[in-house]
Amino acid sequence: MSGHHGDVTREGEVAAELPPATDAGLRFVGRIHTPFATRADCPHAGDREEGPDCVVEVFDDYAPALERIEERAHLQLLYWLHAARRDLLTQRRKGDGPVMGTFALRSPLRPNPIGVSVVRLIRREGNRLVVRGLDCLDGTPLVDVKPITCAE
Amino acid sequence: MSGHHGDVTREGEVAAELPPATDAGLRFVGRIHTPFATRADCPHAGDREEGPDCVVEVFDDYAPALERIEERAHLQLLYWLHAARRDLLTQRRKGDGPVMGTFALRSPLRPNPIGVSVVRLIRREGNRLVVRGLDCLDGTPLVDVKPITCAE
Repeated sequence: MSGHHGDVTREGEVAAELPPATDAGLRFVGRIHTPFATRADCPHAGDREEGPDCVVEVFDDYAPALERIEERAHLQLLYWLHAARRDLLTQRRKGDGPVMGTFALRSPLRPNPIGVSVVRLIRREGNRLVVRGLDCLDGTPLVDVKPITCAE
Repeated sequence: MSGHHGDVTREGEVAAELPPATDAGLRFVGRIHTPFATRADCPHAGDREEGPDCVVEVFDDYAPALERIEERAHLQLLYWLHAARRDLLTQRRKGDGPVMGTFALRSPLRPNPIGVSVVRLIRREGNRLVVRGLDCLDGTPLVDVKPITCAE
């Protein structure tokens, strides 16, 4: 996530006071282990071929949901960008670029900070999936795993 | 969503008592309008070319986040599958198929029922985006809008 900002609001950006986030609740179903300890370590985008092996750990409660997942070559992961602020409605990516709406960007800073990535499944080890293609912080909470179909 | 089941648990399926869904909270940022009033009306998958026009209404609070979205040809929508049960860890799609883990399926029935679809942006009308490619129920709450990059 290098190039992203933290708590500083840049000129031209809109930071809003938004309604409370109580419309629906999520349960974290696992945790993602990557080599990226800080935002500066995160690549701009994951690499499904040459990227490092990462581990998607699924909590025991949800282990039955992995049945036959090893038959899938690619997975779409949803995860909670726990370090991201949620109040920015427009953003300037590097402080000097154009102001863009948050919904026109894939920035992790968004009203509901859910990341979506497609990864390659290298192998399954019990409740742990070894994958390539992630760019998120080590320790990122897992929200969902879906197989991908052609265009998703 | 035809072919999916509601509250009936089929032979071989695992319905779990799961932890409460309080790890993170979502705010709905809009609402999706489709011609699909019931699950039986929903197509199995959206069609970005020939499918009906659907409307993604973004609530006023979040309107600034749409800035320059009209420059994007395709969008990835995240939405809350409000009619879906959340306790099924394995599923049999038609009652007689193999038992599959929920994470190996794109069924709407999942621990965190978030749908992800890629749609084609036909036009923007203020806070409303006219799109093609959706398969969800009319009235589905919107969680996020992201531009798509090549492989997402």
